[in-house]
Amino acid sequence: MYGAGDVRVENVPDAGIVERTDALVQITKACICGSDLWPYKKMPPNQTGRRMGHEFIGVVESVGADVRTVKKGDVVVAPFLWSDGTCVFCQEGLHTSCLHGGGWGSPGVDGGQGEAVRVPQADGTLVVLPVGRDDARMASLLTLSDVMCTGHHAARAARVGPGRAVAVVGDGAVGLCGVIAARRLGAEQIIMLGRHPDRIALAREFGATDIVSERGNAAIERVRALTGGLGAHSVLECVGYDESTRTALSIARAGGAVGRVGVPQDPTVPLATEVFFRNITIAGGPAPVRAYIEELLPDVLEGRIHPGRVFDRVTNLDGVPDGYRAMNEREAIKVMIEF
Amino acid sequence: MYGAGDVRVENVPDAGIVERTDALVQITKACICGSDLWPYKKMPPNQTGRRMGHEFIGVVESVGADVRTVKKGDVVVAPFLWSDGTCVFCQEGLHTSCLHGGGWGSPGVDGGQGEAVRVPQADGTLVVLPVGRDDARMASLLTLSDVMCTGHHAARAARVGPGRAVAVVGDGAVGLCGVIAARRLGAEQIIMLGRHPDRIALAREFGATDIVSERGNAAIERVRALTGGLGAHSVLECVGYDESTRTALSIARAGGAVGRVGVPQDPTVPLATEVFFRNITIAGGPAPVRAYIEELLPDVLEGRIHPGRVFDRVTNLDGVPDGYRAMNEREAIKVMIEF
Repeated sequence: MYGAGDVRVENVPDAGIVERTDALVQITKACICGSDLWPYKKMPPNQTGRRMGHEFIGVVESVGADVRTVKKGDVVVAPFLWSDGTCVFCQEGLHTSCLHGGGWGSPGVDGGQGEAVRVPQADGTLVVLPVGRDDARMASLLTLSDVMCTGHHAARAARVGPGRAVAVVGDGAVGLCGVIAARRLGAEQIIMLGRHPDRIALAREFGATDIVSERGNAAIERVRALTGGLGAHSVLECVGYDESTRTALSIARAGGAVGRVGVPQDPTVPLATEVFFRNITIAGGPAPVRAYIEELLPDVLEGRIHPGRVFDRVTNLDGVPDGYRAMNEREAIKVMIEF
Repeated sequence: MYGAGDVRVENVPDAGIVERTDALVQITKACICGSDLWPYKKMPPNQTGRRMGHEFIGVVESVGADVRTVKKGDVVVAPFLWSDGTCVFCQEGLHTSCLHGGGWGSPGVDGGQGEAVRVPQADGTLVVLPVGRDDARMASLLTLSDVMCTGHHAARAARVGPGRAVAVVGDGAVGLCGVIAARRLGAEQIIMLGRHPDRIALAREFGATDIVSERGNAAIERVRALTGGLGAHSVLECVGYDESTRTALSIARAGGAVGRVGVPQDPTVPLATEVFFRNITIAGGPAPVRAYIEELLPDVLEGRIHPGRVFDRVTNLDGVPDGYRAMNEREAIKVMIEF
């Protein structure tokens, strides 16, 4: 990406093993993330460009001398951050704060929207999938690299559990995966705030019990009305704007929790005093995907959840720039890239 | 209080039973709260004045026809808010959000810095103490009306537990009670941020293991150094200023929690993005004291905790205005009022 709206497909030097802990992965499936749209909207023009993409599945082509858990030919999924798997944070399951981790596309590391990637800390990062590269469940498996785990993180941070009333702010792919996660965790009521007919339809199939299509204060009133005047125990903030955060905090019930996974676009959290007096908890952040893959993988493999349905468009590498455009214009929910 | 710095002792109409659910309580001990200092600093001049005080112990003088759990002669402690004890929030232990509750000094209800109070919803509000009115533990029992329970709430909201590194921002009475609470909940390390020699000494006696007397960034660096570079698992924000909140959020370890009990003085929570990327939880609010009294009372009665030591000055009703001055000038930690 060379700036807002300027995504180009280019030849770059081949990826290869650099460290003894690296793996080289040939990508078979990747995708475009809602968070990729922030630079697509805002990035200042840049001469050198930025490698994009942080969600992928691929086949291991070779591994460094110290790699023990993956080998040539393995089909693997990568979390949206790499991590060593051994530091104090990884041991606590917070791989996003790994002391030796980092992000795809950072200097010297390839982006996931490309043909191949050098994977640092391969043992701590990659999860081997017990499937062939063309498995029918591949779309759902790909969501484990980010979007499904991110929806799950929002639900966990918002303390979703049996009997709870849940509201989901954001009808993008993350919000839709949040509905799946909320249902999976036993929520009694799942209210989706959204207006796009196709997204609403998918939300209902994923388990949403109520749809709120109003905006602003009308939406807040409607959620309160649907929850006995009290608000939702758990609110999943899957957007990141100040306005959506205000809505999320306002529809939370006193003593409830807001799990935020939308990357914040503003330097402060609004409604500090209201949130305080109602004892609302604000939690969340980037999802520790590496910890969640193992929790969610059996449900995908055994067909209990189908998060791959958030992909409503498939393209190839040359189609990536138009994929960004389509997602940015909300023409597509989420775009998968096949190699 | 008639405005900032303007506290007067006046004769008002006698308190009396109005509703069948009321009790009339003759106050024996009350105190001045750190939160009373916000209007003492900021309140615009006001012709009618505002009744002050929300922490008291007293003797029941009479009860309304429907009151069942307290009777004339009982020594009782009142939480800083009254609550019905039966609504959905009270049943969940969040009495501060009681659907039929309210605050002392609100229209038609007396303040706690006075000789007598009409207590609405007496059954849901008052806790009978198994002691005489002049019991030696009275100062510590009085802290159960607010300050000890508030420190405990900060600790709970910050998820203090065995093995955790805890930092306490604010060396006032609430922060000091936060130290007691953190130790009681099994914290391994308790870092008090403060510089007043008498408060530091008390914090150490209550269980603080480290004192950080630096300010601003130097304080943040010092806490990080004391916690292996990682920050504190649990941070108790016991002030409420934007600056103290910044410090609290900055010294929290990734994946940790900040429990805020200082009434926020600003409309937003700072550092939204930093907090997000480090998966820090922000929780807390007004303490549901009515729920906590029963948890903490045995520890006070059996002498395991001595939160009454935060009172370093005792006065009578006429001395209340000077008590405000002394606390505001940090000459006194907390002032007790004897009747």
